[in-house]
Formats: sequence, C-alpha cells, structure tokens
Amino acid sequence: MTTPLQRVDAYIDQHFDRFLGILGELCAIPSVAAQGKGVEPCAARVADLLTSVGLDAQLMATAGNPVVYAEAKGTRDTTLLCYNHYDVQPAEPFDLWHSDPFTMTRKDNLLIARGVADDKGELVSRIAAIAAVKHVLGELPVGIKFLIEGEEEIASPNLAPFIHANLDRLKADACVWEFGTHNADGVPISYLGLRGICYLELSVETAKIDTHSGIAGSILPNAAWRLVWALNTLKNQDERIQLPNFYESVIAPTARDMELLAALPDSDEEMQELFGNTMFLKNASGVELRRREIFEPTCTICGITSGYQGAGQKTVLPARASAKVDFRLVPDQKPEDVVKQLRAHFDAHGFHDIHITVVGAGRPARTAPDHPLVQTLVDAAVDVYGREPLIWPMSGGSGPNYLFSHDIGVPIITLGVGYSGSRVHAPNENIRINDFRNGMRHMAALLMRLGSA
Amino acid sequence: MTTPLQRVDAYIDQHFDRFLGILGELCAIPSVAAQGKGVEPCAARVADLLTSVGLDAQLMATAGNPVVYAEAKGTRDTTLLCYNHYDVQPAEPFDLWHSDPFTMTRKDNLLIARGVADDKGELVSRIAAIAAVKHVLGELPVGIKFLIEGEEEIASPNLAPFIHANLDRLKADACVWEFGTHNADGVPISYLGLRGICYLELSVETAKIDTHSGIAGSILPNAAWRLVWALNTLKNQDERIQLPNFYESVIAPTARDMELLAALPDSDEEMQELFGNTMFLKNASGVELRRREIFEPTCTICGITSGYQGAGQKTVLPARASAKVDFRLVPDQKPEDVVKQLRAHFDAHGFHDIHITVVGAGRPARTAPDHPLVQTLVDAAVDVYGREPLIWPMSGGSGPNYLFSHDIGVPIITLGVGYSGSRVHAPNENIRINDFRNGMRHMAALLMRLGSA
Repeated sequence: MTTPLQRVDAYIDQHFDRFLGILGELCAIPSVAAQGKGVEPCAARVADLLTSVGLDAQLMATAGNPVVYAEAKGTRDTTLLCYNHYDVQPAEPFDLWHSDPFTMTRKDNLLIARGVADDKGELVSRIAAIAAVKHVLGELPVGIKFLIEGEEEIASPNLAPFIHANLDRLKADACVWEFGTHNADGVPISYLGLRGICYLELSVETAKIDTHSGIAGSILPNAAWRLVWALNTLKNQDERIQLPNFYESVIAPTARDMELLAALPDSDEEMQELFGNTMFLKNASGVELRRREIFEPTCTICGITSGYQGAGQKTVLPARASAKVDFRLVPDQKPEDVVKQLRAHFDAHGFHDIHITVVGAGRPARTAPDHPLVQTLVDAAVDVYGREPLIWPMSGGSGPNYLFSHDIGVPIITLGVGYSGSRVHAPNENIRINDFRNGMRHMAALLMRLGSA
Repeated sequence: MTTPLQRVDAYIDQHFDRFLGILGELCAIPSVAAQGKGVEPCAARVADLLTSVGLDAQLMATAGNPVVYAEAKGTRDTTLLCYNHYDVQPAEPFDLWHSDPFTMTRKDNLLIARGVADDKGELVSRIAAIAAVKHVLGELPVGIKFLIEGEEEIASPNLAPFIHANLDRLKADACVWEFGTHNADGVPISYLGLRGICYLELSVETAKIDTHSGIAGSILPNAAWRLVWALNTLKNQDERIQLPNFYESVIAPTARDMELLAALPDSDEEMQELFGNTMFLKNASGVELRRREIFEPTCTICGITSGYQGAGQKTVLPARASAKVDFRLVPDQKPEDVVKQLRAHFDAHGFHDIHITVVGAGRPARTAPDHPLVQTLVDAAVDVYGREPLIWPMSGGSGPNYLFSHDIGVPIITLGVGYSGSRVHAPNENIRINDFRNGMRHMAALLMRLGSA
C-alpha cells in the first residue's frame, strides 16, 4: 500500500521529462522585462500551462506588462496564493555564458538557462505539483491562486496598483513566495520575511561644464568633492548610519528569532571563500554574523560616478557627480521616513545642493516564526526531505512582500527549486535536477498538508 | 624711414598667406600622440620648416616619439630656447566639431583645427618671426634653439631623460614656453611659472567579486565606502588639505607677486558666466580670487568610479572603487613628498587598503617677476601691442617647466597666438587671425630686443 506522497513521487518520475520539456520551452522565450522582449508570448504560454492543469487563467492588463492570474477551487475553503513572475533578467554579458542563455542546456546534474531558477523553474515545479496532486487525489485539496507578474525584474512598478485593485480576488490563507532555495547539501531553506529597500540616486551639479583642474582647482566647487563629503556623513566607519532617528523604529530580533539563527549552520568559511575576504564587518562571525546579515539595516553605496574614469590622467574638475545608495530596512522602518531623514540630514549639514531621487522603495515585512503555516511548511519538508528545513526569520534581500503580508494580509513562506550556486541574475544561471524534483514534491506535500490540516 | 619692426610687419603681411598655408599643412597631419598617428611625418615636416629658415634641424630619438631639435647661431652670444611640441590632443568627440578637425577652416576671423592653437600655431608663428627678422636684419641677432617634443599631450614621459642627456646642448639665456595667450580684447598675457602636479590613482579592492547588496550589505566591506571615507580625510570642507606637513614647504606670494595680481583686471564675472556658478570657493573675489587661483595648492578629485552607474537600480555591493586625484603644487612643494605624506596619512587613519599609483608628477617652477628677461618681454609687447602685457606671476596649470628652470637653468616667459576662447583640448580648437599675426610680431620684437639689450 503506497501513501499519497509516494504516488505523487511516482507521477512526477513518470512525467519528469515532460516537465523538463515545459521548463525548456519557457526558458526559450526571452521574456526580458528590461528590454521588452518576448513578454506577451511568455505570458500567454504560462496562462496555457495553468489552464492545462485545470486552473481558470487569464491575462490581466496593467500599465505595464500583463499579470497572469489563475485560480481553482479546492475541496476545502483554504486557499494558497502563489506569487511568481514570468519575466527574467537580461542575459548580458553573453560572452560569460558557457551555453546559449535561451536554450536550456543539461550538463551533468545541472539545468542551465536564463530564468531556469528565477523564476521559471519555480513556476513549472508548482504546475507539476498541482498536476501530480490532482492525479493522486482526483481533485485539489485546497483552493489555488496564482499571481504571476511580468515586471519583477524591473522592481514591480505596477504590482501595487494591481494588488490594490484586486484585493478581494487575491484573498488567501497562505502565500508561497516566488523563490525558494537549498543549501549545497540539498537541504531546503525557507525565509520568513524580506528587508525593505529605499534605493536612491544622490546627485550634485556644481557648474555648467567640466573645467580644467589646473585653472579652477582652487576656485571652483567640485561636484565629486561635494558628493564625497555628503556621503561621508551618512555612515561612520563603525557602520553606524547617521541619519536622525534612523534606528528609532527598528524592532529588535526576538528570543525566538535568535533561537532560529542559532539553529542555522555557520556559513562563515563558505562566504569567505566566495568573496575572498579575510574578515567580515565588525569582525562578526557565527550567529552574530547571521543576525547582522538580516536584522541590521544598511546604507550601501551601490555605485559612484564622476569625472574622468579612463586610463592615465585627465586633469578635469567635474561639474557633476552621482551615487546610487541602497538602504535595506528592517521592521518597522519605512522608506518614506528614510527619504525625509536624509533630506533633513543633508540640509542640517549644509548639503542643500545634493539632489535626492527615489529609484525604488518598499517596506520590510515578516511572517511570525510561530505562525501555523510555518509548521505546515516544516511538516511538508519532513515528508519530502526527511528533515526540517533551515528557517531564516528574514532574508537580507527585498521584494514586494509587504503588499502581500500587509495589504492582502496573508502569511508568506518560501519553497522552491534553487540552491546556493544558482547564479541568479548572473551568467550561467542554473538549478540542480534533484532540487527541481524536490521542489515539485515539497509543493505537492504542502498542498496535501494544507488540505488535511 | 621705417623702423626694423615696421619692416618686420611688412614682411609678415606680404608672406601671411604662406604662413597660413604652412599652418594648414601642419594641422592636416593628425599627430595625435595618444593614438600614435602621424607622428613621424609631422616631426619630419617640422624639421624641414626649421631648415627652411636656416636652422640646423634634426630628429633625435627618445624612448618614445622623436624630438625635433634645431639651432642656429646669432650675432650675439645670447641664446633663446623655444620649447614647443608637434603632437596634438585627440580630436574626439568628432561629432562636436563644426568642421573637419584635421582640415584647417577659416570662419570670419577664426582659424579652426585640432592643434591650431596647441601647439602648431605657436610653432609656425615662431618660424615666421625668425624668417621676418632674418629678412630685415640679414642675420639672427641672437642664437636660437628649438626643443620640439612629440609627447607633450601624453605628459612628456621621455622629456626628462632627453633633457638630462643634452644639458650642454640645451644651454640658453632665455626660454619661450610653448604657449602664450591673449584676453578677449587681444591684450597679451604672460605667465611666469606653472604649478607642479602630482596626479594619482587611488584604488581599493574589498572582495574578489561584486556582491548582492541585500545579501551582503551588513556584513561585507564595501570598496565604495572605503574610498569615500578615505577621500573625505584628504581635504576638509573649508578647502584645507589634511596631509601632514602638506603646507610646510609652501612659499607665500611676495609683495611683488601681490602687486602683479592687483594690476590684473577682475575676471570674476566672466568666469561666473562661463561656469554658471553663483560663488567661488571661500567666497573669493578680485585679487584674492586670483591669488587662490595660482598660489593655493589643490587636491582635486578628477574622477571617481565604482559599482553600478547606469539607469535605474542595480543592487550591487562593489568590490572595487577608484579615484583620480590631482594635487597642484606651489613652490617649493614636491610631488614625491605628497606621495609620502599621503601614504603616511592613509596608514595613520587605518586606510592601509587604499592603493596609491602615481600617474604623473612634476615640480612647480617660477621665473622671478623682476628677472631682466621679463622686462624684455614687456618692452617687446609695448613695441607690438602699444601696451604692457598682463603678467601673471604663475599659472594655475602645470607642465615640465621645472626641467627648464631648474635642470637647464633658464628663465622662462610665455608669448603666443592663443586667446581665452581657443578651446584647447576641446572640439573646435581655434585661434584669431589677428592674434596669430601679433604672436609672430611679438616673437620678432623679442628677438630684436634680446639682440639689442
């Protein structure tokens, strides 16, 4: 006598080549949102796939790329909302790829293609799980909704209006986030939240034209100097951000959060090897390193540009300088507060000339570690992997999860098909075949657990 | 009864079209040192021109482009050394030129071409002056030497060894520098010195690869932050350079220097219009603005580069950052001292990770305002322009003049064919025809004054 999950496994094994084919087909559509390529054909194909497993799917217009929305009722009233995206990052630089980025290539136990991890692999694994569960149980145990946007890789500019216009339609009891990952040993990792982000461009113009540094070096303001001095006031060398009241709304990690962090394996050596560092900021290690990674807000200079940047010497005094600065926020910091604090701070320090442009912003959001959904996720992982997943109370990254957690009001978990070597956003993006299979199984197990809770 | 200078004028007028033709021919040879173009043909043509006015000219090899060296004896033992260069800046960006940069174009009273001011116009004007003076006097009143290098626009990397190997040959009593200029009204301007320069690249690498700012923002060092913090320590917002002992060897301007500065017309408004500033550094104006312009050493950020610099957002934590920093030095500061001070300063402030690369260096040098040569220059200007030139005790710019002032041991003056709108190093480089003519006359008058002193 076999269990339902064993029958799910058998179905997945039997149909695995078909799912690989579907993934390859999706990866062959270059749905690069930043370049406006292949977006509509990809959306249409995704809707077809959802229809093929019995969901009622449609393309819904936004001011940008359409959202693929799909739903199906289940035996129970419980509903699971899946957030995914069908757009991908640009594949450039092409010359760093070992195979054509839009032709999924199998090499040993790897599947390689742009989007194979982020986010087409996840999407196909969820469709496969639905097919398997319906085959085994004859019906869906819980209702399913899919919100699959086409602009995730360009910072979801039209997601908030879409969600606000469809709050009733999107109501659900649980949400599976777009990504999910595994460590090098194939152990699943789940993140229970994302930091917020406030991504700014800071710019200054001190003259109409660049000047000769010999003629003007002692008499004209220099945009690069203004920017350096202004940036310097934002964070001290002890990594403390200097904006007024910046830390006021930070909620310290709870004892439960620290317990979760303590339960995670150390990754210090692995990270040092990857980045070639001899030490981490503030000499952190172990649990403290992990605490810093997710619970400390940041002020990162992502880029600076001014004046001459070529070889040799050009004796120019730059009229313009700018920097990209990315604040990562923890609950309950708000990006709009950061912008206000920054303006006040610059003005108080005499930097009225530094112009602030908000490039992107989103609030942090978390799901409580003790929410029953987290236990269901853990149980499903035990079913599939024979062990509990690694649970991070939050991720250092950011995304539009506040719209789901807060505006829709649904708890969020992550599960998926990626791993620590997936090279998401980089050349040679890849997943491991076994993680792809386990991602399908984990999703199927979650559906069955939710249906029997 | 005409004076010798009137006969010189008549000769120049009679042969002016020929000199225009020679200038056009030189400008048509694209002797761009940075791109290795047309260098040898230009050097050969310049040697021919010098031979044609009776000088003994030769190409002398260096480790780079050859030097054109020429000399001729005069009636007197007095010798004038002319420093010029036959190489030019690149013409790029071509699309900003209103006419082909390598076809000298006449438009109203302007001659337009790459190199027409810097430095081919000056060179041809000096050859024309020699021809005119020899025609009028039947001989050269003083000896003449020309050192015409082919690498001035790439920072003269082989000039010092050439000079040191030929110190005896280059001995002279006076030196005319490569450039000379006029104000908008055609009044000649002479500079009696140049600031030194110490042009550095400061760079830092904090990891092997760029990282995701969400993952690593709170735990990994950021090269851009390291560079901003390090740069910030170099100069305070009151424009005071913070290196230890930086100002120790600065010689304050003398009462005579200040007298010269006071005699110059204010250029505040003209500069404000050009650069679009509402105020100069430290609110300087008038004499104090001019004092700052040439007698204050500088620390100019000429460029900074790190991380992402494109449109929109990329959430990257940069592993590398670098800046080009240009110190202008006044007597008796030395570039090698600045490099030592900077290393000591960085080390004292914990910036052992900031790497210093010397891109270019040269010491400041001046000719004393009361040197008899300066009076000869003034007298020659009165002969030609009917008024004294504007005398700056120093220029804010830099050049290899220390090699001449100190190593050869010759006093230096400037006279030439440029003007404030010459767009040297920029598209649409040009001179005014009348300045070209007056530059010839001024040089001829100087030769005759030196011969009768």
